[in-house]
Amino acid sequence: MDYTAAFTSAVARVRAEGRYRVFANLLRRKGEFPRARWRTPDGDTRDVTVWCSNDYLGMGQSACVTESMKKAIDEVGAGAGGTRNISGTTNYHVELERSLADLHGKEAALLFTSGYISNEATIATLGKILPNLIIYSDALNHASMIEGVRGAKCEKHVWRHNDVAHLEELLKAAPKDAPKLIAFESVYSMDGDIGPIKAVCDLADKYGAMTYLDEVHAVGLYGLRGGGISEREGLADRLTIIEGTLGKAYGVMGGYIAADAVIVDAIRSWAPGFIFTTSLAPALAAGARASVEYLKSDHALREKHQERAATLKAKLADAGLPVMDTPTHIVPVKVGDPVLCKRLSDALLEEHGIYVQPINYPTVPRGTERLRFTPSPLHTDAMMDELVDALRAVYQRYSNVRVA
Amino acid sequence: MDYTAAFTSAVARVRAEGRYRVFANLLRRKGEFPRARWRTPDGDTRDVTVWCSNDYLGMGQSACVTESMKKAIDEVGAGAGGTRNISGTTNYHVELERSLADLHGKEAALLFTSGYISNEATIATLGKILPNLIIYSDALNHASMIEGVRGAKCEKHVWRHNDVAHLEELLKAAPKDAPKLIAFESVYSMDGDIGPIKAVCDLADKYGAMTYLDEVHAVGLYGLRGGGISEREGLADRLTIIEGTLGKAYGVMGGYIAADAVIVDAIRSWAPGFIFTTSLAPALAAGARASVEYLKSDHALREKHQERAATLKAKLADAGLPVMDTPTHIVPVKVGDPVLCKRLSDALLEEHGIYVQPINYPTVPRGTERLRFTPSPLHTDAMMDELVDALRAVYQRYSNVRVA
Ligand SMILES: Cc1ncc(COP(=O)(O)O)c(C=O)c1O
Ligand SMILES: Cc1ncc(COP(=O)(O)O)c(C=O)c1O
Repeated sequence: MDYTAAFTSAVARVRAEGRYRVFANLLRRKGEFPRARWRTPDGDTRDVTVWCSNDYLGMGQSACVTESMKKAIDEVGAGAGGTRNISGTTNYHVELERSLADLHGKEAALLFTSGYISNEATIATLGKILPNLIIYSDALNHASMIEGVRGAKCEKHVWRHNDVAHLEELLKAAPKDAPKLIAFESVYSMDGDIGPIKAVCDLADKYGAMTYLDEVHAVGLYGLRGGGISEREGLADRLTIIEGTLGKAYGVMGGYIAADAVIVDAIRSWAPGFIFTTSLAPALAAGARASVEYLKSDHALREKHQERAATLKAKLADAGLPVMDTPTHIVPVKVGDPVLCKRLSDALLEEHGIYVQPINYPTVPRGTERLRFTPSPLHTDAMMDELVDALRAVYQRYSNVRVA
Repeated sequence: MDYTAAFTSAVARVRAEGRYRVFANLLRRKGEFPRARWRTPDGDTRDVTVWCSNDYLGMGQSACVTESMKKAIDEVGAGAGGTRNISGTTNYHVELERSLADLHGKEAALLFTSGYISNEATIATLGKILPNLIIYSDALNHASMIEGVRGAKCEKHVWRHNDVAHLEELLKAAPKDAPKLIAFESVYSMDGDIGPIKAVCDLADKYGAMTYLDEVHAVGLYGLRGGGISEREGLADRLTIIEGTLGKAYGVMGGYIAADAVIVDAIRSWAPGFIFTTSLAPALAAGARASVEYLKSDHALREKHQERAATLKAKLADAGLPVMDTPTHIVPVKVGDPVLCKRLSDALLEEHGIYVQPINYPTVPRGTERLRFTPSPLHTDAMMDELVDALRAVYQRYSNVRVA
């Protein structure tokens, strides 16, 4: 068996599909976000504006977060030094879990090392502790939920994206008494559309299902205290489990679920991805807690964020660029071809100092390749105008799209 | 379907097995390790000595690590703000990967958010990119490797712990040309024994298998530069993939693999657990790199660590306590009953200010319950004498073990 050949061909397959990734090496400077320096492949550095960070509000820069982290480092040191059970629980973890439970109006919350593992471990574990569980998963659910559903090793049905009629059809076909879980997202991060939370909750009531909502791209950003779309729509108490990340709007790292105490206790006791791993570094827990608490009150920052997104969408539309109309802060511009998408992104970076990753398969379906912009409250009008001009230039040069 | 009842009974099952866990809430103070304060369930605080941290060398306290982290926070802020591909790669990540590749003498390394996810994602992905892979997994492999093997969805065989004759039997039975992977650990963290690395590599050569070695409890601790048991035994170049953590001896958080560049590139391109998650916070990468580089040269600290472990083992044996003889830094004391194990641990904590978690099923097989001590270079002779006296007292009081 020639292993090198096998790995080489696995990489070649990725290249052939136009989705081989070269990571842009960023030299960031706190306080300058969204400006950064990019280290080019030949070792030069170039000033760029970052347009694709998921630190949506720039909280990763904010003194309340960074100072809390530094203080925690001074107080207790670097890592947790153990799993949650074996010496790795500090007061920072306990208080952050309290703060997150409060955020969603739930009895309890449970921290994980990432949003990814919180989805994977929780969903897989539900399949293990609820015999004969049937999972109903939205077709566009994130990879981490898909891995969780796989790990659950139970019957599963994929419902067409946001199509509650299809979901009901599938629910109706199952035995009335079977345990059921409907898994979906609030803000879908690539299209920027929103899941039909109320309709899903109604169906869950009607068919006796639990609901699992990934609010990763909404926590911190929606609702009067940042509790996400479920808070904004007054639906948090109707959801069985709300999942979120500390690595996007909160600007730090880590993930969590919030739910009834008994559910959290069961996941805590059964999920290998929670039990058998070094717990979140105390400094991350401290920084995340500061961020969550801060964003419980600064609603003006959320409004500014929405205004920035609306402004960018308007500017792009005015320029005749194929911006997708979204009800959220996510601003995707259609391209529809992986090679062109990469070329536009390369030209923006190299010729205009604008950094936006091409979003290609498998992150989005083939044929829907796009550039995805995430304007933050720190992106100015001038930066937007620069972006629109640059985008117009590269579109005109590299594609056949007619631009106004 | 009564979900609350189902979750309640899932928790009740854990309680019935005597393995319901109450996390000890520690109020640590940097510089005082292994001393800490414990917040009792009724809210008091009590001074304790921590005897079960996996921050084996106390690196989580060391100024070189904590100052690097604080400096990185000042330079770039809190979180990475994106996946590795989408704005989440900084120079800290690039340099840490280089430092880890160098540590193991490999062409490349790849960072994950934890050792857990590095095992799970890498092994599962090998199953996906190598059709017809057969995995040979040591019976005592860690939960994260077991989850990876499950996720690989391929033929698998479990070989009796450290039993290379059994491994050979299984290898012999498979088609000569089938791709094969032997997955095992260097230091098994609960028994403190060491995997037969050379014999496994010989078998791998003979039967055309790849090898995957988890060095989580050995990196930083063994070998002249901290490259683990594989470095100490001069075998690193014979292993296909070496996996490690940044959360134990290195005192921070995160995980990685090191291997040929083409293997790392393939995993990088195919593993959802690597691709679809916010990358390690830059400060963690900075702190980990400082720790890895520091431990490449301070071999005296490793020698001190070994001396401390040997001293504790001798003191326990002299006191007639049932310490297991291990060739490593891990000092397990046999108990053999989950209820007694918990009782001893509770008495040590409440009556003697000594914090050591009981290690019960499922972390170890039933009947082998134990207390597991991890003396660091910072644990003094006086602390050890205190521990031995306390342990003798609680053993005498709660068990029938005759103590000298
Ligand atoms: C919808 C969704 N869920 C979960 C995750 C994982 O969260 P984290 O980055 O904290 O691992 C992501 C992105 O990374 C996501 O987009
Ligand atoms: C053998 C082994 N491998 C992997 C891990 C996971 O590493 P991490 O704590 O970095 O997730 C652990 C413990 O946590 C372990 O004991």
